[in-house]
Amino acid sequence: MNEIDWMKKAILQAKVAMKKNEVPIGCVIVRDGKIIARAHNLRESQQIATKHAELIAIERACKKLKTWRLEDCDLYVTLEPCPMCAGAIILSRIRSVTFGAYDPKGGCAGSCTDLFHVKGFNHYPEVHGGILEEECAQLLKDFFRQKRKEKKKNRL
Amino acid sequence: MNEIDWMKKAILQAKVAMKKNEVPIGCVIVRDGKIIARAHNLRESQQIATKHAELIAIERACKKLKTWRLEDCDLYVTLEPCPMCAGAIILSRIRSVTFGAYDPKGGCAGSCTDLFHVKGFNHYPEVHGGILEEECAQLLKDFFRQKRKEKKKNRL
Repeated sequence: MNEIDWMKKAILQAKVAMKKNEVPIGCVIVRDGKIIARAHNLRESQQIATKHAELIAIERACKKLKTWRLEDCDLYVTLEPCPMCAGAIILSRIRSVTFGAYDPKGGCAGSCTDLFHVKGFNHYPEVHGGILEEECAQLLKDFFRQKRKEKKKNRL
Repeated sequence: MNEIDWMKKAILQAKVAMKKNEVPIGCVIVRDGKIIARAHNLRESQQIATKHAELIAIERACKKLKTWRLEDCDLYVTLEPCPMCAGAIILSRIRSVTFGAYDPKGGCAGSCTDLFHVKGFNHYPEVHGGILEEECAQLLKDFFRQKRKEKKKNRL
């Protein structure tokens, strides 16, 4: 298994979100060659602002390992992390973060700001961006195109 | 009730954390002159990296109001928000954030970086810092002094 394989697993999670009418973003956390947590965006169904794929996956990984320190874990997510999720990755000391599509409207691995290289923080994960970028971005494009269509139809 | 009064309520929450041997940070969320959520840091007791006072309070407020949008809510917290909590404040569209002590090691309202003024984000809360700063900082100083004492004792 390499980063492409793990990203495919994250994409599967994004597709689960899509089926639930959630913005299609998925995440897996890997340790010792095994997925220890998987999650997808659940903001709309739960109506809780914090229910992003990465945050849910990090909480599941902490529960599974019974520690808030995820030092030997690697996170794979289909979209560049937002400030909250980038922050949670830093706080949980995750070793590396690999993301698919870039997010010009909120990405915190360089697009809007770069939280992974702020002087003063006490942890700096490795960062890899643009893995299966096109496939990850296409899911989001399809979702928002569908949403616009529904909106237009409702207006008629 | 003014910002000093609400900060005193947040300090009460920080003191609850202290009694549980957690880093003493507390938070309240106010809407229409009433506290709708209160929380304190629970990272150590739950062993989950995301269990910061603000994040727990935001989740409680969303559950209470049954919406992820907290547009007419104001958040009071004893310490300058970390990247994760600053992100959660932005995502939940909280109207204003008022904090007590500044955090040179992780604060994201200007100390390490300023997440509340990043170009491209879709929400910019009002920010007030340094409210009852000394009292909020003293709690943290007392906590870490005690921790160092315990460590020294255990080494003897």
